[in-house]
Amino acid sequence: MKRDPRRAVRAPVARLRTVGVIRSVLKALGKAPRQGAEGAPDAWLEVRPWAEKALRGLAAGDQIVVITWLHRARRDVLEVHPRSDPRNPLTGVFATRSPDRPNPLGLHTVTVRAIDGTRLRIGPIEAIDGTPVVDIKAVWT
Amino acid sequence: MKRDPRRAVRAPVARLRTVGVIRSVLKALGKAPRQGAEGAPDAWLEVRPWAEKALRGLAAGDQIVVITWLHRARRDVLEVHPRSDPRNPLTGVFATRSPDRPNPLGLHTVTVRAIDGTRLRIGPIEAIDGTPVVDIKAVWT
Repeated sequence: MKRDPRRAVRAPVARLRTVGVIRSVLKALGKAPRQGAEGAPDAWLEVRPWAEKALRGLAAGDQIVVITWLHRARRDVLEVHPRSDPRNPLTGVFATRSPDRPNPLGLHTVTVRAIDGTRLRIGPIEAIDGTPVVDIKAVWT
Repeated sequence: MKRDPRRAVRAPVARLRTVGVIRSVLKALGKAPRQGAEGAPDAWLEVRPWAEKALRGLAAGDQIVVITWLHRARRDVLEVHPRSDPRNPLTGVFATRSPDRPNPLGLHTVTVRAIDGTRLRIGPIEAIDGTPVVDIKAVWT
């Protein structure tokens, strides 16, 4: 069977697994700050029990990058008016931090406030309640 | 049908699409530096033609975060000896920058050196030739 080159480039490269979920007082997108530094609250990151060993060595006070899957974002958007302000010129999503993009990954640099088993208290973070977490990385300072 | 809660937590949350690919002189993992700042070369990021509009507004000199899919990494690893040195204590992958982790996403903060259509010259970057790119974001300074 002949391979369609257009299909090939759009083919999924990989499937993400949820390693955790955000539990936040932010319940709706409209009320969430656009970035963590803009008055976002702390939240809980509940890590799945099967991934518990991956937390070994993390401690309160650490800086981490949390990568979320922005499940409410649109994947068919390639250009936006930054910060949803029509006065801002139309800009490619790769030149912005818009949540709308082909793979809506969110990057959040946060501080670990406390650890309770597989639950991390982290912040500040603008992700809404129920946002899936797909990776956690150390930040080197 | 009853839902198996253990299956639910391991279910894939989403499928990533390749938005581009790294073209580098680094052809093998063993020769790649562990981080971009450790003597990594510049490379080309070839963006897929369908995503061209997402580049609008990017310019030489910009700082961006490139998110890669580390396709050669192991997804079944939860603990590592950092930097593959057995003298380093066993550490959870979420407390490290190990490429081996449940979702092997790579984060690379790089400078755009030049833009030629859908090809970005970027660096320094330690990703090897052929590494899929799944997202590009602006860095705010």
